[in-house]
Amino acid sequence: MKEVIAIIRMNKMECTKDALATVGFPAFMAYKVFGRGKQRGLQVTYPSEHRESEADGRRIKFLPKRMVSVVVEDEFVPAVVAVLMRINRTGNIGDGRIFVCPVDDAIRVRTGERGKEAIS
Amino acid sequence: MKEVIAIIRMNKMECTKDALATVGFPAFMAYKVFGRGKQRGLQVTYPSEHRESEADGRRIKFLPKRMVSVVVEDEFVPAVVAVLMRINRTGNIGDGRIFVCPVDDAIRVRTGERGKEAIS
Amino acid sequence: MKEVIAIIRMNKMECTKDALATVGFPAFMAYKVFGRGKQRGLQVTYPSEHRESEADGRRIKFLPKRMVSVVVEDEFVPAVVAVLMRINRTGNIGDGRIFVCPVDDAIRVRTGERGKEAIS
Repeated sequence: MKEVIAIIRMNKMECTKDALATVGFPAFMAYKVFGRGKQRGLQVTYPSEHRESEADGRRIKFLPKRMVSVVVEDEFVPAVVAVLMRINRTGNIGDGRIFVCPVDDAIRVRTGERGKEAIS
Repeated sequence: MKEVIAIIRMNKMECTKDALATVGFPAFMAYKVFGRGKQRGLQVTYPSEHRESEADGRRIKFLPKRMVSVVVEDEFVPAVVAVLMRINRTGNIGDGRIFVCPVDDAIRVRTGERGKEAIS
Repeated sequence: MKEVIAIIRMNKMECTKDALATVGFPAFMAYKVFGRGKQRGLQVTYPSEHRESEADGRRIKFLPKRMVSVVVEDEFVPAVVAVLMRINRTGNIGDGRIFVCPVDDAIRVRTGERGKEAIS
């Protein structure tokens, strides 16, 4: 079992969600994150709610991003990665990254199902 | 060492926190996330702060959830899962899921303690 | 490949970011989280936006924290941990924790590069 995590552009969230559901992975989590990759020189002014101080607003160069996480059986990892690549690749700096991480077990709280039953 | 991650209902956060502390796991992290499991047909109107556009407000079908993460020694995983199940199982769609993930090491920043000392 | 995750004080975010970039790790993610470690007795009033109810505002004892995540090759884990320790260690309760977790693969969405090329 693997967790496929994608850090993507904010405006790619909706079509990523739709694409994952279309190919059979309707269950996933989304997070609001701030990230910085190779675009470290890009100056972004943080919205005031995210500043720890006025000075931070001018200095912080993070970009707001979305993080999407899907837990799937190992055999489905290539399909999920392919969908995420197809939807999120614009060719421009800031397209994001995908990480594949091990997951030992999953349990559906409502039924107590474990393993592949819990993520299907 | 394992990370036990639970995606739970927002209104189960407080009693989950209390239950984990009661059974001896006072240290954990909580995140605000948006999730979608089998309840994909459920139409939810996103609060305006989470919309990327007006259209998103009508289309997005995520549910706001809480994510709780506890890092424990392997032997305590069953106890943590049992507590999370007991508190969060209502029997209705949307009870959430629990994932168990491997953790290689932990370090307490204040003292430099590593491994089980860092998570006790 | 490992993910090094640090739960740190809010006001350490900026210098942690700068220090990681200075030693050659400019790419990372930041999250807003709520955490509780050994300082469980510390009473904190939650800002109203985070309350599930008025009662929660008085009872919840989480602290707002920042979570920083860097994915690096195994050989760089000690360097990243050392930087995180140096910047975030005040010696007071609440300095946070660092976790090291396995990552199986990484993909840069823009180029399709995998593994160490995707995280360099």
